[in-house]
Parts: sequence; C-alpha cells; structure tokens
Amino acid sequence: MINKNKIINDPVFGFITIPNAFLYDLIQHPYFQRLNRIKQLGVAYFVYPGAQHTRFQHSLGAMYLMNETIKQLRFKEQDISDMEATGLLSAILLHDIGHGPFSHVLEHTLTKGISHEDITLMLMQKINAEYHEDLDIAIQIFNNQYSRKFMHQLVSGQLDMDRLDYLRRDSFFTGVTEGSIGSARIIKMLNVKDDKLVVEAKGIYSIENFLIARRFMYWQVYLHKTSVAAEKLLIKILERAQFLCSQGEKLFAVPALSYFIQQNITKDMFMTNDDAIKNFIALDDSDLISAIKIWVNHSDIVLSTLSQAFVNRKLFKVKRQELSEDIKADLIKNYVKHFKISPHDASYFFDIEPLSTSATYHRGSDQILILANNKSVIDITDASDMLDINILDKTVTKNYFCYYPIG
Amino acid sequence: MINKNKIINDPVFGFITIPNAFLYDLIQHPYFQRLNRIKQLGVAYFVYPGAQHTRFQHSLGAMYLMNETIKQLRFKEQDISDMEATGLLSAILLHDIGHGPFSHVLEHTLTKGISHEDITLMLMQKINAEYHEDLDIAIQIFNNQYSRKFMHQLVSGQLDMDRLDYLRRDSFFTGVTEGSIGSARIIKMLNVKDDKLVVEAKGIYSIENFLIARRFMYWQVYLHKTSVAAEKLLIKILERAQFLCSQGEKLFAVPALSYFIQQNITKDMFMTNDDAIKNFIALDDSDLISAIKIWVNHSDIVLSTLSQAFVNRKLFKVKRQELSEDIKADLIKNYVKHFKISPHDASYFFDIEPLSTSATYHRGSDQILILANNKSVIDITDASDMLDINILDKTVTKNYFCYYPIG
Amino acid sequence: MINKNKIINDPVFGFITIPNAFLYDLIQHPYFQRLNRIKQLGVAYFVYPGAQHTRFQHSLGAMYLMNETIKQLRFKEQDISDMEATGLLSAILLHDIGHGPFSHVLEHTLTKGISHEDITLMLMQKINAEYHEDLDIAIQIFNNQYSRKFMHQLVSGQLDMDRLDYLRRDSFFTGVTEGSIGSARIIKMLNVKDDKLVVEAKGIYSIENFLIARRFMYWQVYLHKTSVAAEKLLIKILERAQFLCSQGEKLFAVPALSYFIQQNITKDMFMTNDDAIKNFIALDDSDLISAIKIWVNHSDIVLSTLSQAFVNRKLFKVKRQELSEDIKADLIKNYVKHFKISPHDASYFFDIEPLSTSATYHRGSDQILILANNKSVIDITDASDMLDINILDKTVTKNYFCYYPIG
Amino acid sequence: MINKNKIINDPVFGFITIPNAFLYDLIQHPYFQRLNRIKQLGVAYFVYPGAQHTRFQHSLGAMYLMNETIKQLRFKEQDISDMEATGLLSAILLHDIGHGPFSHVLEHTLTKGISHEDITLMLMQKINAEYHEDLDIAIQIFNNQYSRKFMHQLVSGQLDMDRLDYLRRDSFFTGVTEGSIGSARIIKMLNVKDDKLVVEAKGIYSIENFLIARRFMYWQVYLHKTSVAAEKLLIKILERAQFLCSQGEKLFAVPALSYFIQQNITKDMFMTNDDAIKNFIALDDSDLISAIKIWVNHSDIVLSTLSQAFVNRKLFKVKRQELSEDIKADLIKNYVKHFKISPHDASYFFDIEPLSTSATYHRGSDQILILANNKSVIDITDASDMLDINILDKTVTKNYFCYYPIG
Repeated sequence: MINKNKIINDPVFGFITIPNAFLYDLIQHPYFQRLNRIKQLGVAYFVYPGAQHTRFQHSLGAMYLMNETIKQLRFKEQDISDMEATGLLSAILLHDIGHGPFSHVLEHTLTKGISHEDITLMLMQKINAEYHEDLDIAIQIFNNQYSRKFMHQLVSGQLDMDRLDYLRRDSFFTGVTEGSIGSARIIKMLNVKDDKLVVEAKGIYSIENFLIARRFMYWQVYLHKTSVAAEKLLIKILERAQFLCSQGEKLFAVPALSYFIQQNITKDMFMTNDDAIKNFIALDDSDLISAIKIWVNHSDIVLSTLSQAFVNRKLFKVKRQELSEDIKADLIKNYVKHFKISPHDASYFFDIEPLSTSATYHRGSDQILILANNKSVIDITDASDMLDINILDKTVTKNYFCYYPIG
Repeated sequence: MINKNKIINDPVFGFITIPNAFLYDLIQHPYFQRLNRIKQLGVAYFVYPGAQHTRFQHSLGAMYLMNETIKQLRFKEQDISDMEATGLLSAILLHDIGHGPFSHVLEHTLTKGISHEDITLMLMQKINAEYHEDLDIAIQIFNNQYSRKFMHQLVSGQLDMDRLDYLRRDSFFTGVTEGSIGSARIIKMLNVKDDKLVVEAKGIYSIENFLIARRFMYWQVYLHKTSVAAEKLLIKILERAQFLCSQGEKLFAVPALSYFIQQNITKDMFMTNDDAIKNFIALDDSDLISAIKIWVNHSDIVLSTLSQAFVNRKLFKVKRQELSEDIKADLIKNYVKHFKISPHDASYFFDIEPLSTSATYHRGSDQILILANNKSVIDITDASDMLDINILDKTVTKNYFCYYPIG
Repeated sequence: MINKNKIINDPVFGFITIPNAFLYDLIQHPYFQRLNRIKQLGVAYFVYPGAQHTRFQHSLGAMYLMNETIKQLRFKEQDISDMEATGLLSAILLHDIGHGPFSHVLEHTLTKGISHEDITLMLMQKINAEYHEDLDIAIQIFNNQYSRKFMHQLVSGQLDMDRLDYLRRDSFFTGVTEGSIGSARIIKMLNVKDDKLVVEAKGIYSIENFLIARRFMYWQVYLHKTSVAAEKLLIKILERAQFLCSQGEKLFAVPALSYFIQQNITKDMFMTNDDAIKNFIALDDSDLISAIKIWVNHSDIVLSTLSQAFVNRKLFKVKRQELSEDIKADLIKNYVKHFKISPHDASYFFDIEPLSTSATYHRGSDQILILANNKSVIDITDASDMLDINILDKTVTKNYFCYYPIG
Repeated sequence: MINKNKIINDPVFGFITIPNAFLYDLIQHPYFQRLNRIKQLGVAYFVYPGAQHTRFQHSLGAMYLMNETIKQLRFKEQDISDMEATGLLSAILLHDIGHGPFSHVLEHTLTKGISHEDITLMLMQKINAEYHEDLDIAIQIFNNQYSRKFMHQLVSGQLDMDRLDYLRRDSFFTGVTEGSIGSARIIKMLNVKDDKLVVEAKGIYSIENFLIARRFMYWQVYLHKTSVAAEKLLIKILERAQFLCSQGEKLFAVPALSYFIQQNITKDMFMTNDDAIKNFIALDDSDLISAIKIWVNHSDIVLSTLSQAFVNRKLFKVKRQELSEDIKADLIKNYVKHFKISPHDASYFFDIEPLSTSATYHRGSDQILILANNKSVIDITDASDMLDINILDKTVTKNYFCYYPIG
C-alpha cells in the first residue's frame, strides 16, 4: 500500500511523488541514503557557493523525470508493463550509488581502474540479493541487457533522465540560469520507434537547445577553470597522502579512508574482496574534509601546505597556456627553493593536464534520432540545419595549467 | 526632483526604477502610453495564451537594461556623461513608438514603403520639438549620427538592449523557458574598446548561448507555424478590406482605421502630410479587433468568412511543403466552387510565402566583438570553436503554405 | 481520440494538457474564445504593466488545477466518475464566460441587476443545448444542484480552483510575488469527508498563508488606490455616455456597445430577449477602448475630458480621507467654474465610494474545514492559533475619494 | 582597487557584487570560509533534501541586501558615510561566524552557557586585531554600541537583513515557496526617522506578509516535526558521547571534537583560554558526520544504535501529544528490556521537549514602526487592521515527543 505522505519537496520540480512502496524502500536503503552526503558537483562550491546539492536530490529528480516519461510514452500507446516501469524507475534512482566522495573528483585517485558505473552495478547486485531479485529488470536495463533497448537509452544515453535532471539542477543551484533546459518539453516530444528512443520532429529546436546548453554548462561550470583548479588541489592532496603512506608515514583518517590511501585499490580487489566495497560505502565527502583539516598540521610540508590551501580556499592559480618545459623547470625550482624540498615533492604543487571536453554529440550507436513527419527516422545532425556534426563531434581541448602560488 | 514613487513592478526584472524626471515625462507622453495598447507579439497569443504583453512593458524593460549597462560601463571607467546617459535611456525607451497595431504583423499592409523605424524617428522628432530639443542626443544615437558609435550599438545592434529584453520577456510570457538568456551575465561582460562595443573573453559562452536562444525563439515562437498562419489571416482580412474600399464599398471602422484602408499610405504621405501621422498614433490593436468583429456580418463572403475565422480562432491550416501549381489550382477551384466567388477573390483564402529567418548572425559592419585576454579584438565566430559563421550567416527558408479550411 | 497536440504552454504552470476532446471543443467555442479579449484584472495594467493577462488563461489554469485535484482525490480513494470529472472540468473552465469587458469593472454599469454568474449560467445553458445536454452535470455543479455538494465547493467556494488559480496568476503577472500561494501544496492536502471538502491537518499553515496572501492581494493589487481610480474613471466615462444617449446625443460605438449605452439592460431583458445576450457576447475590451479614443473628440466637454484622461493615463487623483460636504462643494464649484458646466455634470469628475473588502473569511455555510488527525472536522479558525475569526470576518473599509485633477 | 571579477553567482539574487576590497578580504578569511562547511538549516535536509545550503551563502546574501538597503536609504537622503557603510556590510557579513556545526542544533550541547552571538563577537574582535581596528564600527554596530541606533536594527532587529535573507533563502532551497517574502519591496519601503528604522505606510501589507511568512516557515520548516526529531537524535548522540567520555570511554573523533565532548566547555573557558576558540573554529559539520559513522560500530549499544539511526535515516518517531508519565514509563521499560540497558541509558532514546515558537512579533524596545502619511510613527500592530498583537506576541507551544522506534 502506498503511504500518502510519500511526497518530497524539491526546489527544482516542486513536488516529487514516490511512485510505489518498492521505490520508497530503495530510497531508505543505506546505499542510497549515503548519496545525501556526496555533493553532486564536487568542489564547484568554491566557485558557485550555491552548488551544495547532492547526488541524493539529483537521483530523486531523475526518478521524477523517468516517471513523467513513462506516463508520456504510455499516453502515446507504447506498452510499458508495471514491472518494466519499476525497473526503469529503480535503475535511474540507483544509477549513481557507485559514486565516491566528491563525485567524479576522486574517481581515479581513491580507486584505480574501476569506474563509478562498475561500482553502481556491484551495489545494485548486492541490493538485489537482499530484495529477492526484485531488481533483476533494473539491472538488465542498467547493463543494457534488457530486450527492449530503448529502456537503457532512458537510463544511459544521449537523452537520458540523468542528463535531463543534472543540467537543470546544476543550472538551478549554481545560478547559471542559461544552462537550464526544457526538460518538460523534451519529454513531451519523446517516443519510441523500432525499439529506439526518438524525438518528434517539432522537438528538434529543443534538442538543439539541449545540446548547446549542455556545452554551455561544460565550459561555464563543469570545466570552470577555478573549479578545476580546486579539484586538482584536492587530488594532489590525496596523492600526497597516498605517497606518504607508501613511505610508511602515519596519517589521521577514518579507517575507510585509510583503506584507500594505504594501498592501491583496483577493480580486481573490488571483485574478489568484500572489504573494498564495505569501505567504499562507508566513505563520503565528510571524511575527506574532516581529515584534510587535520592534515593541515602534519609535519610534511607538502601535505600541510596543500591542505591549508584547500581549507582556507587559497586555490591553485590558473594559466590558460601550455606548460612549457621552461616554465615547468622554473616552477619546480621555485618550490624546491621555497619549501626546501626535492623536485619530486615539488610536483605536487602544480598540474599540467589541459581542459578537455569529450564530444558534445557523437553519432555512434547511441544517436539522437528525429522522427520526421513522414515517419522516417533520421539523425539529429541531419535533421538540424544548425548543428554541424563536424563541430559537435570534436573533442575540444584548451591549454591549461595550474599551480600553487607561493606567498 | 525625482519622485520616490517612480518604481514600477515588472514580472521579469522585479522592480524598474525610472531614472529621472525627464524619462518619467517621456513615459507619460501619449505616444508612449499608446504602446500599452499594442501587443509585443501580435497574434502569437493564439498559440501562446500568455503572450498578451505589450510594447510598453518591453520598452520599460529595455530602459532598465540600458541603465544597468550604463552603470556597468561606468564601473569599468568608460566615461559616459549624464546627458549621454539620458540620451541612451530615451533612445531605447522610445525605440518602438513607431510600431502600429499588432506590431510587425501589419507593418507593410496598413502602410507601404515606410518602416516602423522611420515612424519612430518622425515621432521622436515631434516630441523633441515639444521638449525644446532635449531629445537631440537620443535622436542622434538612434540615427547613428552621434559621434560615439558604440552608443548606437546599444540601441540597435547585434547585442542591443532591445534584443536582450525581448528574448527574455517573450520567453517569460510565452512560457518557452528555454529561450531565456542571461541578460545580467551578458551585461556584466560588456565593455567598450576603440568606440566599439566588445564582450570580455570569458563571456564567449554567454554569447553563443544568446545566439542559439535567439534562433530557438525564432522557430519556436516568432515563426511558429500556427502563429504565422494567424498573422496571414489577419493580413488577408485587411487586404480584403482595402480591396473592398477600393471598389467603393463602405466598411465599419474608426476614422483612423478608415484612413489606412481607404487609400495607400506611403512614406511620402507621412513626410508631407500631418494626417498620416495623426491617424497613425490614434490606431492600436483594439481598433482592428473591434472592426473585425463587425466585419463578421459584412455582405462580402470573403471578408465575413475570414473575419469570423479570426474572431473564433478557426485559423488557417498549415502545410510544411511548397505550394505547387497543382495544389494551388485545386485550392482556388475549391474556394470558387464552395463560395461561388471569382478566382481573384479565392486568393484571399491562402498564402504561399515560405517561412524564412534572416541570418542568426551576420558578420557585417555590426559585429559581435570579443575582447581577448591579450586585449586584441576578434569576431565572435573566430573566437568560438562552436559557432560556424557559414551556418549562422545563412538565411534559412522552410517550405510553407497556409489556407482556409473549408468545412 | 485525444489529439496529442492538445498541450498548451502556460507561463504559470508550465504545460497544461487538455484532458479530453469534449473540453477541447469547449475551449474552441466562440463564447470561450471571447475570453481571450477580456483582461483578467480590468485596468490594473495602468499600475501593473504586466497585468495584461486574460480570463482565457485564467480559466485554462483553473481547469488545470481541477484536473490535479481530481487526480489527488482519486488517489485518496474518493470515487469520482469520468462523467463527474468532465462535469467538474467543464464547470470550472466555463465559470467566467459571463464576464463582460474589463471583467468586474463594468459589471453594474453596462448591465443592471444581473451578475456575471447569472450570465455564465445562461451561456452554459445555451452551449448545453448545442451539445445535447453534455453539460448537464457541469451546470448542476455550477448551480450547486448536484447531489455531491463538495463538487460545487471546488468550483465556487472558499478554496475553489478559481481562487487557487487567480491568486497565483495575478501575483505572477503583476510581479507582486508575495501574493503567490502554494496551490500544489494545498491541493495535495485536500480531501472529502461527509461530502464536504476538507483540508488535512498538516495543511493548516498553507491555509493560513492562503488567506493572508489573498488579503495581501486585495490591498496591494485589487484595491490598489490608483487602480481603483482608473476603474472609477472608466465607469464615469460610460455613465456619461449613457447619460448623453438618454439625452438623445449620438455617440460613436459598435452596435453591441450602443445597445448597452442607449438603454438600461436589466436581468429581465436578459431572460426574455435574445438580443441582450447576443450583444453581450459580441462585446469585449477592444470595443470600449476603440470607442473611448473616438470620444476624446466628442463635443461634450465632460465625455471628451474624461476620455482623454483615460487614453493618456491622466488618472483620477486619490485622497485617503472621507469626502466631506465642504470638500465636495469645493470640488463641484471648481469644475463648474473651470469647465463652465452644471453641478450635475461636475459630478462625473469625482467618486466618493470608499474602498472596502468583504470579509477575508466568513464562517458561514461554506467554511474551510480542517480534518484533524483524530478524524474530527473543525473550522479553520478553531484549528488555527493564528487566525482570529473576529478579524477575518470583518469587512474592512477605508476612506477614499478620487477626482479629476484640473490643470 | 576593486577587482572586476568580484561578482558571485547566487541562485537567489542572481549576482552578488562584493562592494570593496576590505569585504573581499573578510570573505577570504578562514573564519568566514569555514561557514562554507556549516549547513544553514542543520539536519533539515532529512526532510527537505534541497536544504544543503550553508551559512556562507546566507551571509553573502545578507550582505547583498544590506548593500541594497544602504543605496535605498541614501537615495532617501539619509546620510550614511562610507565608513559606516563598510561597518554595516562587515557586521552583517560576519554576524554568523560564531555558529558551530549544524548551526543551532548543537548550540547548547557542544558548549554550555555561551551563545553563537557571543562567539561571533569574540571572533570579530580577533579579526579586528589582525586588521588594525578596521572592524571597530562593525563591532559597535553588532554590539549595539554605535551612536546611530538604527544601524544595529539593520543587523539585528525585527526587520534585519539576516531575516530578510534567511526567509527567502530557506524558502528557496527547501522548495517551500509560500515562505518567500518580498525582500526587494520591503527594502524599498525602509526609511529612518529619529534614528529608528521605519517602514513607509504603503509597505504595511508587505510587513504583514513578512510576519505571516516567517511564522509559516517556523511551522513548515524550522519546527517541522520530523526535522526536529532528527535534531533531537543528533543531540542525543552527542550527549551520549559526552556521557561515555565522562565515564572514561575512548571515542573516535578529531581532536577538536574530542575537546568538546571530553569536558564541559563553558563561556568562562572561552573567555580565558585560547584553546576553546581554537578548537571551535576547527570544527564543522563534516567532523560530526565522519565521527558518527565510526560510532556506528562502537561497543556501547546506545551510541551505536543512535548513530546507525542517524546515518541511515531511521529517525525518531513523533507523537503530537504530551508524554504522560505512563507512556514514558512504558517507553523506558521497552528500551530496558530490548537493549538490556539501565533506565538512565534508556533516556537517550526519546525526547520530551514540546515544540515552541517564540512570539512572532513582540512589541518591546525593538518594534516595527510604520511611518504614517502624516509623518507620525506608530507600531505595526496599531497600524494594521489585520495583525492582533495579542496573537502575535504569544508563545505557541505544541505537545510533542519523539522516540526511537524499536524494530
């Protein structure tokens, strides 16, 4: 029986109704509750103070949009069974439970060779075991093993509910209103043809708008140079902590964090040893922040300096140019001299990776298809007179380096 | 002395403060008050019921944005005198006073060979005569005869306050939220270099977004097929009324409307005869609607049928294809037979003009210039890795015809 | 079959879906389309330029909220049949079709002794005749003759969909954001007990908020002193026109307007003579505005002066005091002297009616009932520790007079 | 010189400009940056997932409103010097730096007999020492020792910038839109008379609305029963931790947290011993969350059970009734039996404090004064026909207890 109180206030969509008791239970699950302690945008709050929103809210929002989409597709006489609906809703609700502290920031630092999607899948399987396989369809959809392929597209594709929520939500909380997309309009234009998600012809401008807004959010928010500099700082701190541990140093940390900084945790270890997953789900943003504040007083000058910089927002400075060998040599020389450290230790004070977006739209197996008025189906870049596939499909890379400013 | 009450509630910007007593007087002027009776988007309310907003609100909004821009440029140590500021504010406030009923819809039907900008200028000159030349600078700016050229750009250019207001406002009232642009962010990025309006480098994504949003609004609102069909219907009604008058028929209309339908009013007549302008400023949306409701009962079957269609929203049907000679012949045959009218009379029942946007961005004398970090100035399409000048500069034309549906 | 396109953009609620084909047809009916030409807030746009929204939008919005309410009540296992649902939706959609030009402004000027609700009922009956009695239930609900009494409450009661829409919508378009109510939250708290509409206990604060917001809108918008002064001016113009006609003067007006100013149209005439209703539905805001612009040039100094004042927004001045006999005598003397008119004629230049709200909440047969957690039902003023029935039930009257300012 | 980039995106107010370099430096100060790690609404995110916003954002927002107010008062020719303006802006910016983890939640748990205002003052004095007394005026204003008394009212009074920001901001992030107040309208109505803050007469409805909205937010958000239950749970956890420490148990915690749970930290200790303040500013939300997750595995059944409940959102159940001695005895008996613990230990599993608001408005020395049109000054409750001082001044208390649900 559905509890009438299962309505959640959401500043983005107003009210979110939890569709049924099974989804309510998933929301109450510790794996899901943990998302309440993981910021959606990592350290972007250093640039956009409003960006304190969590993966928890985002996942509820994506579930809300999935529910709207299911209603819309059924209205268009697409047959979706109740079990499939619950599968879709569960899959999108849980799609981010594999995220670690600060979301993407630490994805390849705390762990090696395992993506958050891999971990999501492992956690979904664990929940499924508890729930007598009630997540079977959800897992198949998530995995793209379910027979009806369009369902996977709704969970993970060019126009999935994940993107429809996060673009609007990140735009809302950062205050970067231009990134807002018309999720309601897009959903009203969705349909299914030959088991593929398609967009009705008159939705073409909304899709153009969606692709451009997404690109806008990349450069204005996700790859904002100062925000990236803050991420780099956080990564360098963790790498230094790992290095110190490898040298036998003792570092204050909760056990779950110690687990990940005292050794290299690989995909293999996740697969074969319950400890990895147990420690992983114990971790969230708070453990990192709490520890870094302690590390401010560590005897290692590199760790303490970087930690202090993070806590008090003395972020890395950014240059929009390539880090030439000359500049790099100069930088290292300065750190060596100023901190009286080795060149290796100096390398924690700067980062040289350029900024890079993946393609805004890639015409691969997962296309955005437009359902023309004559019922034929064509790729968005063929249907649009505006979008040039050659531009959209390009990876854009910008020269960039950032470094700790002495003094 | 400024009256403290001179604050106007605006649903788009919150509160608009009237900057000084001179602008207050301009707002009270009958020529400006008339804009309260002219809808910003003509007959778009047939498609977007919220779009009842007027040129009056838009002009106040554009004045508000101009004031914000002046503050911003002064903050960046651009020297703008108080007289120039009042000139800029007056020019943008009055830039639309030359619009006739339903804004653009009837621009080349009620009058011939004279644009609304021409009429705006005539009216500004009339007000200037009343006000002892206090509008001199405003008129020079409007006319692009003022020495500081960037000021004209703020009133009429690629990034003028007109566009910054109407895109946000039309988006707001239609409910097409995706068309919303970040006017506040854009204004914060504006500067002047070598007497040209420039956008600081980090504003480049906002400009991309602005151009795309503008294009979006074109296809989703301004050229919405049903809305265009309603415009065509209104134009056909007026053309029929003019035709009937030319045949000596009597038609109910207020004198000012009769003036424009009983004869061809040309630019020359506006220039040489006070009657044209006097009748023009007496006219607004209400006179058309009131008359058309009477014409529903006119003995001419063409006029009464089209008027009835307009009043009761039985709009022209739209086809997204070219009107071939065959289809056209068929259409005419049907109307001739159904209404027992001549082929000439049948021509009022359909329209064949295709939909067409002008270029989204044209790199002519009035460019959007980006002020790079190294202080050089480059065109937006060179600065952006996204915008392809070849696409933006293209006129897009779509096959389209619309016709009165019998039965 | 439902046409998939039957979705309407609404700036307040996002998208409004037309529930079924019958409602679509009602929306297309000329009686309903006419509401597109009648402003919701009469002449309030003189004070709040954004307030150009129409009864058309409001009625669609109220229908949207009714649909949400029906869903909510069914979710709480209240049995509402499809026929009842359509009845409810139709009744609320059509509840305002009896409004004349400028909504309430002219309600007792153009007509005498007949309310807009009376006319709504007559028009609903006419539509019902066209539609083979498909509006039977709607009319019964509207009339409070339907067996299930709570349904009338949803259409016309303390918490009806009319109020829930207009408070939000008027707040939205005027920009007076404080008047915004939480319609979605209130609807989620609605239920039915013993055939009466009730609000669940935890909704009590939302109801308090609703009552206060409503009162706020009264004083800030509906009874705004300048807006009322504009209404008075409009009424005086029409009364003068009626007076002149009674004296045998000829006045420019469309026939439908002439019909109402050349004679006193009473309820009796509406009931017995088809002409009244025929002329009534031909009228809208445009006819008044169009005529008043002509009257500016009428030879009667009273009519021309007042018409000019209306067209150019030279509104009546307001005093927040009682009009003493002395002040009144002075006023009349001035007008008599300035315009060389009789004292009777002078009386059109001012108005002495004080501002007055009806009770904010009256505990009569139509109460707001709270469903306590123990399932008992109590009046809101008993349930709230904040709302004092003695204050809420009071008619508030403020001294006020307004007059035409000479010079 | 002001850095042009000192503009911060804020989802509530759009853009916040940092007024000058001194304020920029205050924002960069570690004491202020710490607010970025303290949630504005404590654990309200358990009920309103959007409520992750921090004291940092709130303080910036309050500074923004102060800046708007200063502009407005100067426009009304109130003389405010630049030094006073900076004093006002600094005082409001820093007014919350004395808040500890989870804002109010732990105010009397972590510390005894010292309020967050006391700590704010101590921290302001410390910053002042660093800044060569540049905060002198700010401290006097904060302390109500500055000669111009209205300035203190802007920082801490019935209509201070603190409230104007937090009501809007909390409403925004919780999604409880009805709590939104018209801060811009209120500010435009502010003035100063005889060194007292007054509201112009026509702002009276806005003030009524403000008082009601505030009360609404109290019951809907700040005293939401589930949210209060979550606070109680957090407090019980901390009290248990303190108890265990007093018994000589070792508990995992960062040193700063240990400092506060291992001893009673009183106001006296803050005044006389630098350690208290040093440890206080090292603490934030993260340390509590991180520690509680460890305590889940503690051997003490009370601490581990409550910690587990907090981490996994198994919140205290709420009853809206008085906790009678009988029920209490039953509760204790159950916990004693279920957990095999002493009655004293059982007392950590429930809380009996009723919900209580202070008066919505108290007519004491700090009144809300209305400046009547005749320039006299009267209390809001005399000016309003709506607000009953007898009701507003009442402390409202609601029966309430909450307890850990076994099983």
